[in-house]
Amino acid sequence: MGEKVTVGIIGASGYGGVQLVRLLSEHPQVEITYLGGDSSAGKKFADIYPHFAQLPLTIEAIDLEAIAQRAQVVFLSLPNGLACQMAPTLIAKGCRVLDLSADYRFFDLGVYQSWYGGDRQDQEIAEKAVYGLPELFRDRIADAQLIGCPGCYPTASLLGTAPLLKQGLAQPETLIIDAKSGTSGGGRAAKTHLLLAEADNSLGAYGVARHRHTPEIEQICSHLARQEVQVQFTPHLIPMVRGILATIYATMRDPGLVRDDVLTIYSAFYRSSPWVTVLANGVYPQTKWAWGTNRCYIGVEVDPRTGRVIVMSAIDNLMKGQAAQAVQCLNIMLGLDETTGLPRMGFYP
Amino acid sequence: MGEKVTVGIIGASGYGGVQLVRLLSEHPQVEITYLGGDSSAGKKFADIYPHFAQLPLTIEAIDLEAIAQRAQVVFLSLPNGLACQMAPTLIAKGCRVLDLSADYRFFDLGVYQSWYGGDRQDQEIAEKAVYGLPELFRDRIADAQLIGCPGCYPTASLLGTAPLLKQGLAQPETLIIDAKSGTSGGGRAAKTHLLLAEADNSLGAYGVARHRHTPEIEQICSHLARQEVQVQFTPHLIPMVRGILATIYATMRDPGLVRDDVLTIYSAFYRSSPWVTVLANGVYPQTKWAWGTNRCYIGVEVDPRTGRVIVMSAIDNLMKGQAAQAVQCLNIMLGLDETTGLPRMGFYP
Amino acid sequence: MGEKVTVGIIGASGYGGVQLVRLLSEHPQVEITYLGGDSSAGKKFADIYPHFAQLPLTIEAIDLEAIAQRAQVVFLSLPNGLACQMAPTLIAKGCRVLDLSADYRFFDLGVYQSWYGGDRQDQEIAEKAVYGLPELFRDRIADAQLIGCPGCYPTASLLGTAPLLKQGLAQPETLIIDAKSGTSGGGRAAKTHLLLAEADNSLGAYGVARHRHTPEIEQICSHLARQEVQVQFTPHLIPMVRGILATIYATMRDPGLVRDDVLTIYSAFYRSSPWVTVLANGVYPQTKWAWGTNRCYIGVEVDPRTGRVIVMSAIDNLMKGQAAQAVQCLNIMLGLDETTGLPRMGFYP
Amino acid sequence: MGEKVTVGIIGASGYGGVQLVRLLSEHPQVEITYLGGDSSAGKKFADIYPHFAQLPLTIEAIDLEAIAQRAQVVFLSLPNGLACQMAPTLIAKGCRVLDLSADYRFFDLGVYQSWYGGDRQDQEIAEKAVYGLPELFRDRIADAQLIGCPGCYPTASLLGTAPLLKQGLAQPETLIIDAKSGTSGGGRAAKTHLLLAEADNSLGAYGVARHRHTPEIEQICSHLARQEVQVQFTPHLIPMVRGILATIYATMRDPGLVRDDVLTIYSAFYRSSPWVTVLANGVYPQTKWAWGTNRCYIGVEVDPRTGRVIVMSAIDNLMKGQAAQAVQCLNIMLGLDETTGLPRMGFYP
Repeated sequence: MGEKVTVGIIGASGYGGVQLVRLLSEHPQVEITYLGGDSSAGKKFADIYPHFAQLPLTIEAIDLEAIAQRAQVVFLSLPNGLACQMAPTLIAKGCRVLDLSADYRFFDLGVYQSWYGGDRQDQEIAEKAVYGLPELFRDRIADAQLIGCPGCYPTASLLGTAPLLKQGLAQPETLIIDAKSGTSGGGRAAKTHLLLAEADNSLGAYGVARHRHTPEIEQICSHLARQEVQVQFTPHLIPMVRGILATIYATMRDPGLVRDDVLTIYSAFYRSSPWVTVLANGVYPQTKWAWGTNRCYIGVEVDPRTGRVIVMSAIDNLMKGQAAQAVQCLNIMLGLDETTGLPRMGFYP
Repeated sequence: MGEKVTVGIIGASGYGGVQLVRLLSEHPQVEITYLGGDSSAGKKFADIYPHFAQLPLTIEAIDLEAIAQRAQVVFLSLPNGLACQMAPTLIAKGCRVLDLSADYRFFDLGVYQSWYGGDRQDQEIAEKAVYGLPELFRDRIADAQLIGCPGCYPTASLLGTAPLLKQGLAQPETLIIDAKSGTSGGGRAAKTHLLLAEADNSLGAYGVARHRHTPEIEQICSHLARQEVQVQFTPHLIPMVRGILATIYATMRDPGLVRDDVLTIYSAFYRSSPWVTVLANGVYPQTKWAWGTNRCYIGVEVDPRTGRVIVMSAIDNLMKGQAAQAVQCLNIMLGLDETTGLPRMGFYP
Repeated sequence: MGEKVTVGIIGASGYGGVQLVRLLSEHPQVEITYLGGDSSAGKKFADIYPHFAQLPLTIEAIDLEAIAQRAQVVFLSLPNGLACQMAPTLIAKGCRVLDLSADYRFFDLGVYQSWYGGDRQDQEIAEKAVYGLPELFRDRIADAQLIGCPGCYPTASLLGTAPLLKQGLAQPETLIIDAKSGTSGGGRAAKTHLLLAEADNSLGAYGVARHRHTPEIEQICSHLARQEVQVQFTPHLIPMVRGILATIYATMRDPGLVRDDVLTIYSAFYRSSPWVTVLANGVYPQTKWAWGTNRCYIGVEVDPRTGRVIVMSAIDNLMKGQAAQAVQCLNIMLGLDETTGLPRMGFYP
Repeated sequence: MGEKVTVGIIGASGYGGVQLVRLLSEHPQVEITYLGGDSSAGKKFADIYPHFAQLPLTIEAIDLEAIAQRAQVVFLSLPNGLACQMAPTLIAKGCRVLDLSADYRFFDLGVYQSWYGGDRQDQEIAEKAVYGLPELFRDRIADAQLIGCPGCYPTASLLGTAPLLKQGLAQPETLIIDAKSGTSGGGRAAKTHLLLAEADNSLGAYGVARHRHTPEIEQICSHLARQEVQVQFTPHLIPMVRGILATIYATMRDPGLVRDDVLTIYSAFYRSSPWVTVLANGVYPQTKWAWGTNRCYIGVEVDPRTGRVIVMSAIDNLMKGQAAQAVQCLNIMLGLDETTGLPRMGFYP
């Protein structure tokens, strides 16, 4: 089996970080050699997450030099705008970097800056970054030194949409993505509207017509459709911890297509993708099926009355939508089977 | 204040029934004189709902003759297909009837039969029924002897859509309603997929492109738009007890309209409707705000990039979506203020 | 009906405050004339709770002089240690005061200071305060000028325990109260452990053997038992918004008593208490039955094998455990029926 | 690594079964060769749990002859009273059997029959069964041919109580176990009180003073204490899917012991138990820490005022409380490390 690959995680105290620690510490080919954090430096990891009592990990201050010496691969799980200050140094020192923030998701940093602000000087490095959605960019990920891991909403949205656009089934300008997410997507920082007493048994949209995942979705949709695509993207907060469902609407180019046709096209599209399950005729996904796994479940319906296709795409936002997908990318980068070390079956019920 | 109006409730053991009992027993102008049920006949109401221990009500077998003698107004809260066997008799005996099932929601019984099945012989009576959505049919409700109370999804959907169609703001063929409901909408009968262990922390669509509330929504939309309207309606089950949010998408006829314009039109439309609150610029509704009340909260967004208007409409599915709206209709039928006896402010948090 | 009583609420932005606003604005004999707050002064109440959009209330800075001029009765809903700085002034100016904090719950300020800290100079006023648990101190509340409203855990615990101790049924030193509360008891301030993503689907004890409601419970238990009583009190945080269940264990003095005997004694004890429902033989309370009401449900079991009595007492922590009980006290102070203006029947499901 | 052990699962469609399928299909030393069921015979497993779409398993009719030919080890996950009709045959044919029902948990079938009913003729075989709680009976499990796997409540209760009784720290007659469980403990059959609309946001006790897990707990407690022990056991239903917390109260024999003493004793007791984590001073367990793992978290508090020790014990009821603990037993039976194939770290948040 050879030597284990050494990995570091910077920003381990959030929900992305704790998933990375869990997955990587159970991964057979990997050894965690560095946990970095600023505000939590010096703490044992078990002080932050007591259920890791049996894991003797301590968070260290972020020292890029030390990290590069101890880790061949570095995961950055930090707020937007920080990875771009660290990745160039780590790459220069020979590390391979997987960034879970928005910093390296955009081909064009101008788009990044208009939605996320900040002043970016690393266009050259950003151009080399590969968008870490393996089902679409598997080959490029294999050779990449820098991965910009997708956002949770874009992962669910793009896996549901890609066959439509790539195969020219849908009229791109009719694309509407009504997305629903559990509250863990909002992170672990204490915010009033995410309190159980507020968020439980309630439901609402937010960021309508201006959520920052919109340009990320549009960038890849445009790439797939080989034309400029604008999408209507509406996120909703759902009273549950984990999971995203994207309900995707589009008018079909050919109104004669039936559900079976579309399912056949989807199944073919994902034939070589072990983490995407296209559901049988008439089965629609429940987000809980994906809980705890790296899997995306896709269901398809066609409405002959309206000429629309409706695609439902479900993931665990912290797994396929974040940490597990990053590990899937790592597997591809290391030449491993892309399912290595990742739970295959849902934690259910 | 005059004498109280006597009311009977047939089918009091479900969630609609228990809300009716609660609301009507606290209503200042009304006296419950009959609770009817078949499977539960002979039981004390508190045997079914122990939190009604202090209320000395017993469920009696359904005897239309006895009901008509004791109740001036009768609420029918039964599965589809039963009200149409009772309402004609009750009406003949002089009762006013509010039916909470689908039986009297359709102008054309042909539509009813093609979606709900059954063999209906009461077209004459069905034609006299008034659709019990007071914000649209207030005047006709006042004089009606038979009310077909709207479904929960149609109530949220239509209140959110009506100004768009009535004022010609939207292109009707672009109408997409992505609706989300708590599980109480599925009723109190034990079903595996509604168990807490299954439904909690999960989310999925169902009845895509074929839910029976679609023709009900289309019937009223067509009436409002004065043309045949087809809608794309997709219901989702949300891990919460109560509440519906309808997220409504439509392409605007005039792409120059901005959010303020649309809000002005909505506010004017609902000027005389005490139970609809059009939210301020940039505020989107949370379903929990409506919890326990008869209120509908509406938020509006316009996306200048795509030329679409996005309307969010939130109600409590058991209140404005069912029992409280029926009481609102009753108030109008009795010439009372339509807020009489209904909780005005949300149970929050 | 006479003129309405003018009331002020200081500290209206928390969960206690929003319940007070809701209840008092629907109360037929009361008019809210002052909402006071420091951090939220100048805001409309609907900015904090948008579901109050239809209620034109604005929060003003706390000015005791102005309050006393405009309000005959003042509710203080503030963190511990603030009411004792305001109540003496308000009382001196002739207001009647209901304090929802811990400041006036203790006969002996020494006990207060040893558990809550601070330096209290108002022993004289504190001695005149009446403990606002109407089922035990109804007569004294009627004449009081200052009410120290009970904590949520003590309310559930004491209503479940009082007949045992008052009638000498239980050996006081065996008293164990295992209490469970929804997360709204932790207030509306953003804390990580109360986030939905953390608290949902989880359960744990806290403050074991040292929670500050212990001395409050012991003070009243000792009063009832006419001897010093120590209780074992263990609170737990439950993944739900509202509700407290206290499961109370005690060894019976007379092992020959059976469940019916105990139920008879409980029913007699609460004969004149409209807000306590002693459940029938073999029925145990569900917290949700009490949701949205001022009611306490009590179930009783006797274990002949062990000689213990087990009492279960369920309330809505924000209603009978806080705001609605304060309104119940107000009703008694005003000579009204103690059920006036309070919802009688649970919001269910 | 040798050949894989062949295992069969009878009763795979419930929550215990689906966990067994998940765990055993990911276990490196085991191969599932038989899924048996009566009502579901002939169905694909993915028809019952669509998230197993990628696992090609079909449920077969229960044929003991066929099972014994294809499986060296058989898990029985059936309602009480069925395993005792199958286990004798399977054992006679040379299978090793792990039963997840109550049938083989009792040394004395008289106790079983008085609490569970039925007419048992298999006392001889029942006497050879080993109680499958590895932390207490590890050695006997290694050699057993028949395991009676513990109930979920007894697992949490006994792991929390064992050191107290075994080391004589507590007065046995003072033992009170106030236990709280998620609703998945009630199984997957549709019952009204387990509907999300009923159980969510509610909380109550059930089976007070007469729950069938009481004699199971008492049997092992008596064994540990070497005297007859009666416990006060009260289960509660909590609005969450998974998890059990047992809060255990006992008066200490030596009132001079402090928390550190008790923690030292607990840590020593579980020194060789990789699946029990005794938490640090002042840390109390959250059930969610155990989610998805076979771990039991134990926290300890001592109240010097009352002379009581309070122990909190948290598990995942479907894992350590059911399926994963059975796999832990299997590992011991096969001479493997007892952690083999079981997730070590919690699924969190």
